[in-house]
Amino acid sequence: MTQNQDKILIIGAGAIGSFYGALLAKSGADVSVLCRSDYEIVIKQGYSIKSAALGSWIFTPSQIIRNASEYNGQADFVILCTKNTPETNRVKLVQEAINKNTSIVLIQNGIDIEQELIDAFPDNEIISGLAFICCNRLEPGIIHHLAYGKLTLGSLNRKINNSQHLSDLINRTGIESIATDNIISSRWLKCLWNAAFNPLSVLSDGLSTKDILISQEKLIRTIMQEVCSIADASGHSLPKDSIDNNIQNTYAMPDYKTSMLLDYQNKKPMEVEAILGNTIKAAKKNNVSCPTLDTLYALINLKLTEKTIH
Amino acid sequence: MTQNQDKILIIGAGAIGSFYGALLAKSGADVSVLCRSDYEIVIKQGYSIKSAALGSWIFTPSQIIRNASEYNGQADFVILCTKNTPETNRVKLVQEAINKNTSIVLIQNGIDIEQELIDAFPDNEIISGLAFICCNRLEPGIIHHLAYGKLTLGSLNRKINNSQHLSDLINRTGIESIATDNIISSRWLKCLWNAAFNPLSVLSDGLSTKDILISQEKLIRTIMQEVCSIADASGHSLPKDSIDNNIQNTYAMPDYKTSMLLDYQNKKPMEVEAILGNTIKAAKKNNVSCPTLDTLYALINLKLTEKTIH
Repeated sequence: MTQNQDKILIIGAGAIGSFYGALLAKSGADVSVLCRSDYEIVIKQGYSIKSAALGSWIFTPSQIIRNASEYNGQADFVILCTKNTPETNRVKLVQEAINKNTSIVLIQNGIDIEQELIDAFPDNEIISGLAFICCNRLEPGIIHHLAYGKLTLGSLNRKINNSQHLSDLINRTGIESIATDNIISSRWLKCLWNAAFNPLSVLSDGLSTKDILISQEKLIRTIMQEVCSIADASGHSLPKDSIDNNIQNTYAMPDYKTSMLLDYQNKKPMEVEAILGNTIKAAKKNNVSCPTLDTLYALINLKLTEKTIH
Repeated sequence: MTQNQDKILIIGAGAIGSFYGALLAKSGADVSVLCRSDYEIVIKQGYSIKSAALGSWIFTPSQIIRNASEYNGQADFVILCTKNTPETNRVKLVQEAINKNTSIVLIQNGIDIEQELIDAFPDNEIISGLAFICCNRLEPGIIHHLAYGKLTLGSLNRKINNSQHLSDLINRTGIESIATDNIISSRWLKCLWNAAFNPLSVLSDGLSTKDILISQEKLIRTIMQEVCSIADASGHSLPKDSIDNNIQNTYAMPDYKTSMLLDYQNKKPMEVEAILGNTIKAAKKNNVSCPTLDTLYALINLKLTEKTIH
C-alpha cells in the first residue's frame, strides 16, 4: 500500500460496480465493496472477472462490507453503482461512508438523478458518471464483461474536480475513461439509447437489442427523436448524427439483453423512473410533446399491474 | 318449415357466429353453419349455448358443413363471422354459397373491411354488421354469452336492403338489433373500444379490461382521442361523449378478456390489421397524426417477432 493510494468504496457491487472496482484495484487503488446479495460468495472467493477484452482475473476487494457504517478508514471516493430505482434510498445508503473530503461518484442510469445527492451533501464533490458497457452478472460473484467499457465522468462542483484523477486510474487498465465538463449532455446521449431499447426489450418479452432493431427500427428512431427534442429543450442539444450513430453501433453490438430486461426477467425493480419517468418530467417541464415515451411509460406500468382475474 | 323461412348460412361459427346463429334459429330461420375446428363435436351434439340473459339451450343447425360448396339450397343470407385476419381469404370462403339473391353479412371487427367483398360481389347486397357482445367459446361447441348482444346492421347498397328484416329476426329473441343507415360511423365507434382495449390486453400480458382501466385510464383516453380524430377526418365524426361513455360502460362491464388477448394466449392470428392497421391507414390517408396508435401497432408486431437468441 503506497502512501498516496486512493481509498475507494464501491457501493452496489453488481456487474458494473464490481467491474470498475476490479479495474481500479488493478490500477493500484485500495478498493472495497459494499455488497449484499453476493456477500457470502465474495467473502470466500472474491469476484471472478471474465472480460472479452482484458482476459480473466480474480478481484479481491480490500474490505467486503454490508453497510456503509462498517467501512474502515477515510474514503477518497465512494462510487455508487446500485440500480437507480425509487426503492433505493441512495442518501441513506452512502452517508455513513462519507467524510468531508469524499468525492461521491454516481455511475447510474437516468436523467436528473444528481440533485438528491447534491442536496444531501452540499460540501462534497459530486461526480456524475456514465458507463457505456456490455457487462452482466451471470451468477453470484461472476462478472462477464462482453464489450466496451468507456466510463465518462464529470464533476458537478466548481471548486473541486477529481474526475480526471479517477479517469486516469481507469485509463491505466486499458479501458477508456474521460473526464468531461459536459456530463449532463453525455447523460442525455446515453438516455437516447436507454429510453428506446430498455422499455422495448421488456415490452417485446425479451428480444435482444439487435432483434428489436431489425423488427422496429422506425419505432426506435421515433423514440430517439423525442429524446433529442427533450434534450434540446433542456439546453443539452445532442449532435445531429446521434440517432444514426446509436443505431449503427447497436447493429454492430453483440446480441445483448438490456439491464431492464434482465431485471424484469429476474422480477427485480426496473429503472423505469430514472430512465423514462424523469425524461418525461423534463419534457413536461419544457412543454415538449413526447407521445411515444408517454405510451411506453404507461405500457411498462400496465405490464407491472397485478391481475385481479387470471 | 314455413314457406317463407329464411335460409341462413353462418360461416365461421365461433362464439359470435354460433350465438347469433342460435338466435336466428330460435326466431324461426333455417340456420346452417360452416365450421371447421368444432365440426366433429357439433355434428354429434350441436352447440350448447349458455347465456346469462337468455338461459341455456342447444342449437342444432340445419346443415353442418365444412366448405361453402357443400351448402344445400339457396341462401338468403350468408353471415360471415370469421376472425378478420390477413390469413383468411374471405371471398374464397363464401363464394360457393352465394347466389344472385344472397345478402352477404359481415359481422367482423375493424375499419374499412367491406371493399374486398363489394368488389368481389358487386351485384349482391353487402350488409356490414357489428356485434356489441361479451361472448366466449370456452370449449368446442360450448358458447358462453356473458353480457350484451346488440347487433347493428347496415346495408351498403342503395337498391336492396334486408338489414331491417335480419334485425327483426334477432329482436324477436330478446336480444336487441338495429338497422342503421350509418353503419360506418358505428364501426368507428366500435373501433374506439377495440383499438384501445385489444392491444393493451395483449401488451399487458393478460389484464382484463377493468384492470387496464384502473391502471391506465389516461392512456385509454389518449388512444380513443386519436381514433376520434381519425374518424372525424374520415367523415364519420363520433358523438362528443363517446369516450366518456365507453369508459363508463367498460368500468360497468364484468371482468373481460378481449378477443385479441384470447387469440394471443391461444397462439392464434390476431385482428391487428383490421383493428389497428386499417385505422392507422385511414389516419395516414387523411394526414392525421396518431403517435399512440403507431406505437401500439409497432409494439404488437415487436411482441410477435421471433427471438434469434433466447
